[in-house]
This record gives sequence, structure tokens and C-alpha cells, in this order.
Amino acid sequence: MFENINIQSNVAVYIQIKNHSLFAVASGGLKAGERLPSINDLAKKLDVNQNTVAKGYRELESMGITRSRRGMGVFINQGVEAKVVDECRRRILSHLHEVVAEAKAANLSAQEIKQVCTKSFALDAPLYGETPDAILALARTKNG
Amino acid sequence: MFENINIQSNVAVYIQIKNHSLFAVASGGLKAGERLPSINDLAKKLDVNQNTVAKGYRELESMGITRSRRGMGVFINQGVEAKVVDECRRRILSHLHEVVAEAKAANLSAQEIKQVCTKSFALDAPLYGETPDAILALARTKNG
Repeated sequence: MFENINIQSNVAVYIQIKNHSLFAVASGGLKAGERLPSINDLAKKLDVNQNTVAKGYRELESMGITRSRRGMGVFINQGVEAKVVDECRRRILSHLHEVVAEAKAANLSAQEIKQVCTKSFALDAPLYGETPDAILALARTKNG
Repeated sequence: MFENINIQSNVAVYIQIKNHSLFAVASGGLKAGERLPSINDLAKKLDVNQNTVAKGYRELESMGITRSRRGMGVFINQGVEAKVVDECRRRILSHLHEVVAEAKAANLSAQEIKQVCTKSFALDAPLYGETPDAILALARTKNG
């Protein structure tokens, strides 16, 4: 499930690990009782420092989403799905609102914003990857 | 033009100063040859450190958007409008794409994303302010 972590992204890797985990729980891809990869394995796979993975995992634990069992690994807690769904929705809608406000301030139209959303949604682009050319093409005006 | 800078936001104040300036140029509210407030005045008005304002202004200057004239102030350069429009559009569309990818990963529908955009656009919410209740209400599911 962490195939798409992008260590070149400007989103910090530990945040990506946290968000990928939360979105996987929210969308049902990761279920209560399931185990996350070990810190050691995930750090090797992503070629990042173990502290980076540990930091992402710590955030999940402090949110009450996971529990680490000594010698066993890190597990998704029972009964967290509804909470995770609500938390993800709240964050994503806040984030979306912020970008729409920026777009409005910069003079983009509501129509144009919705067009970008439609295009973006239809693409199977990895999370936190580079912005696809199809989206950047929409950014170009007659000036660009 | 910096009335809505929000020092409680999780967007750094110098970034807000930079973005407010860019969006104002992109939307025609701030024109070539016009002067930004002095660092001292803006720092006082926002009740932030002068270094914070200076950092925002430095970013604009390093992008080639402004020029500072000793003893005169900081001015928007001639002929930068098209460049600023393109730069703003590119950043905003990348940002929008990222949020849509998050929303999709967390199982929101395209329809729902567009509904939030429409509602957000219709609100006259300040940039980088708290997320309006009308948006947070859309985040609530039957769980919330």
C-alpha cells in the first residue's frame, strides 16, 4: 500500500505515510486488526531513514488509529473506521476550500475549477506525484 | 490589500504575504508601478516581526515580480502580469490536483468534490481563514 510514496515530493515523507494509511482506512483498503509493514521493512523499501517511518507511525498512534504491540508490529485499532472517515473528510474539505479560495483570489472561474477537478479525478495519477501534464496544460493561458 | 492576512493560519505569514501579492497582481488589483506597503508599516499593521514581512517581499523580488528602490519602497515591476498569471495558475492547479487525488484516495466522489468547490466559491470567505462552517457541515457523514 505504500507503493506510491514519493520521496521527491514537497509533501514530507512521514506525512505521506500518515495520509496514505488514513486514506486506506477511510476507503476500506486497510481494515481493523491489519498490520502495517514493520518500520525496518518500510524504511528499506522506500529507501528512507527509519526515523522518518517511525515519525509517520507515531502520528497515527497519537491519533488513536494504531497500536503497536511489542515484538508483533503496528496494528489498526478496532472501531476506528468512522472516526478516520470523518477526520479525512474534514481535512480534505478544509484543504479543498483553501485552494478554491486561492483560485478565486487569482481570478479563476468556478467553471474552470470544476473542470480541473473533473480532469484530475479521471486521471489515475499517484498521490503526491508530479502534477500530470494534462493538468498543467489547463494552466496555460494565451500568455504561457 | 493585506487586510486578510491571518496570523493564526497554518500557512506561514510570509507565504501569505507573497501569495496575496501574487493573486492581487494576477487579478488586476495590484498593477505595475504600484508600491507595496513599507516593511515597517506592514509589520506594525499585522503585528508581526519585520523579518517576516521582509522574507515575503524577498521572495517576490527573487521571482522578479518586484523591485526595491532604496529610500522609495518596493514596486511591482513593469510587464510582469502575464508571468504572474501563468505562475499562479500553475501553482493553483497543481495544488488543486493534489487535493483531488487525496479526496479520491479517501473515497470521496467526483460529484461531492465539485459540490464543495461550488459552495466554497460562492462563500466570501477570507483567504487562509478558518474553514467556514458551511464547508465543515459537508464533511460530516452519518458517523460525525
